[in-house]
Amino acid sequence: VTTHATVVVQTGCVNVPWEAAIGAENLGSLGEFGLIDALSAWLPAGPRTLVGIGDDAAVLAAPDGRVVATTDFLIEGRHFRRDWSAAADVGHKAAARSLADIAAMGAHASGLLIALAGPPDLPVPWLKEFVSGLAAEASRAGAAVIGGDTSRADLVVLAVTGLGDLAGRAPVLRGGARPGDVLAVAGPLGHAAAGLALLASGVRDDPLVAAQLRPAPPYDTGPEAAGLGATAMIDVSDGLLADVAHIATASGVRIDLNTDLITNGGSTPELTLMLTGGEDHSLAATFPPGTELPPRWRVIGEVVDGRGVTVNGAAYEGQAGWDHFR
Amino acid sequence: VTTHATVVVQTGCVNVPWEAAIGAENLGSLGEFGLIDALSAWLPAGPRTLVGIGDDAAVLAAPDGRVVATTDFLIEGRHFRRDWSAAADVGHKAAARSLADIAAMGAHASGLLIALAGPPDLPVPWLKEFVSGLAAEASRAGAAVIGGDTSRADLVVLAVTGLGDLAGRAPVLRGGARPGDVLAVAGPLGHAAAGLALLASGVRDDPLVAAQLRPAPPYDTGPEAAGLGATAMIDVSDGLLADVAHIATASGVRIDLNTDLITNGGSTPELTLMLTGGEDHSLAATFPPGTELPPRWRVIGEVVDGRGVTVNGAAYEGQAGWDHFR
Repeated sequence: VTTHATVVVQTGCVNVPWEAAIGAENLGSLGEFGLIDALSAWLPAGPRTLVGIGDDAAVLAAPDGRVVATTDFLIEGRHFRRDWSAAADVGHKAAARSLADIAAMGAHASGLLIALAGPPDLPVPWLKEFVSGLAAEASRAGAAVIGGDTSRADLVVLAVTGLGDLAGRAPVLRGGARPGDVLAVAGPLGHAAAGLALLASGVRDDPLVAAQLRPAPPYDTGPEAAGLGATAMIDVSDGLLADVAHIATASGVRIDLNTDLITNGGSTPELTLMLTGGEDHSLAATFPPGTELPPRWRVIGEVVDGRGVTVNGAAYEGQAGWDHFR
Repeated sequence: VTTHATVVVQTGCVNVPWEAAIGAENLGSLGEFGLIDALSAWLPAGPRTLVGIGDDAAVLAAPDGRVVATTDFLIEGRHFRRDWSAAADVGHKAAARSLADIAAMGAHASGLLIALAGPPDLPVPWLKEFVSGLAAEASRAGAAVIGGDTSRADLVVLAVTGLGDLAGRAPVLRGGARPGDVLAVAGPLGHAAAGLALLASGVRDDPLVAAQLRPAPPYDTGPEAAGLGATAMIDVSDGLLADVAHIATASGVRIDLNTDLITNGGSTPELTLMLTGGEDHSLAATFPPGTELPPRWRVIGEVVDGRGVTVNGAAYEGQAGWDHFR
C-alpha cells in the first residue's frame, strides 16, 4: 500500500452500524469509520463524558478547573506480545499505564483517549476483546473512554491518553520529599517482572504471570495519599530503584531503601526483582514523619540528606531499571 | 532487540541536562530520560501549564470547568515521508491535526501531549527541529506542549493529544445543522492534495507543496464560528465531501454544495481536488440563515431536507475521501 493512496469511501457509508461491524472479519474489512462506530457502540459514556466518541473531539467535565493529563505508548513487540497477552489483557494494560500516572498525581481518572493503529488483518473479535479490557480497566479507575484515533500500521500501536481531576487538592509532584519523610509503597513490587521471567521460560498459569499480563494498580491509593499529605509520589513503572531515584533527584534528597521492610521477611519474588522490576504500576510516595498510613501503604525506606538512592545505607551495584533506547 | 530486555540505567543519570543532549548524536545515544530532559528544555511552558513535562502527568488549567480533548496519529510512511518533509514540517503537521480538531469544536487550544516513538538512529538535530515545529504550531494556536511519552519503533510514530477550552460556550457538534442553514468554509480546499500530487511528480518548490507539508489551519475561526452561532462544524481532514457528509449524517439533513461558489470562478486547484482532497484542515461549518459572516468564511452550499451530500443538486459520482484501512 502506498502512502497517501486515494481510496474509495462512499459518503453514504460513514455511519456503518456496529451490527455490521460484527459481520466484518478484520480491521481491513471493518474500515476506519466502521471501527469508530463500533468503538462508540462498545464503549459506554461515563458520568463526566459531555461529548463522547464520534465528533472532532470529546468534551469532558473538569469541575476542579484544572485537568491532569498524560499519554503512554503500548507497542506490540516492545510492551506486549500478542502470543502472550490475550486481547483483553492488552486493553487492561494499555489503560493501566496511563491511569496509574493520573493516580500518581493524587488525581481521580475521568477520561481516556485511545489511539489505535494496527494491521488490516487484525481480527474484529480481537478488537472487541481489547476494547472490553480497556473499558473495564478504565471503569475500575472511575474513567470512561471518550475518544481516540485509528490508523494502519504493521504492528498494533496504542497510545493512550489519561485525563483526571484533582478534586480541589494540589497535585503531588516528584519534588516535595524532605529529609525525615518516610517512603511507602502501595501495590506489589517485582510481580510483573517475575511474571515476565516465567513467561519467557514457558510458564503460563501462575498468578505472577497474570500480574505481568494484567497489572492492577491500586488507583484509589493515589488520591488517598494526597489526602494524607504525601509530599512526593510516583508510579513504579520502570522499577523501584529507578523511579524512587526520580523522586530523590527532583526533591534534592537521598532516599534509603530498607530491604527488610521491602521483603517483609519473605523472599518471593526475589529482592532484585522487587528493587528493579518494572511494570507493576504500584505507587511509591513520601509522607511527613508520623503520618498514620492505612494498611495498603507499606513503609519501605526513609528520606535523608544527600543525593540519590541507597539500599540499606549503601550504593546499589547492578541494573536499576529500564530505558527504551538502550 | 528483544522485547522487555532488561537494560542498564544508572539511577544517577536520570537528569541529563539538555546541553548533554546536544552532544548526543541520535535518539539511541540520547536515551529515554535524555530525550525527556531535552524536550523539557526545548519546550516552553504556556500560560495554562500548571505542571509541565517531567512528572507522572501534566496539569493544565481548565477555567471553563470542561476540557476538550482529541488524539491523532501521524505515522511515517502513512501520514508523512521523511524524504519529503523536513523535521519542522512534521512537527507543524503533527500539532495541526489535533489543534484543528479542537478548533472545530469551537474551542481554544491550551495544551498538547506528544507521544513520540522512533528508531535509535533518529538524529538529535531532527528531533530538535521536529520539536521546534511542534512548539511553533502549538503557539500559533495559543497552546503549549505539556507532556508526552517516548518509545522505540522502527518508524517515527507520533500520537498527539490536543486539549482545549470552550470559554463558557457550548461545543459546536456535527449534529446541529438545520434545513435553511448555509454551509461555509474557512481555509483552503484541495491545496494539500494538489501539493501531494506535485510532490509525487517530483516538484518541491511550490506553494501548494508547502500547503501539503505544513498545513496552516485557521484555528481562530473555530471559536469565531461558535461565537457567530454556528450550528455544526467539522475539520476538513478527509476531504470536503466526506467531512460534510459527517455533518449531514449526524444532523439528519442533506447538504448541497455549489461548485460555482467553491471555485469562485477559478479552476486552481481543480474542482475534484477541492471536493475530495484531504489534509487541508480547513473548517467547514453551518450557520443559521442570515448570519453575517466575516471575510474568512466563504459560503459554499446550503442545508436542505433529505440525507447525504449532493453537488449542484445531484449525487456525486467518484471517490469521496480517505479511509485508512481501504
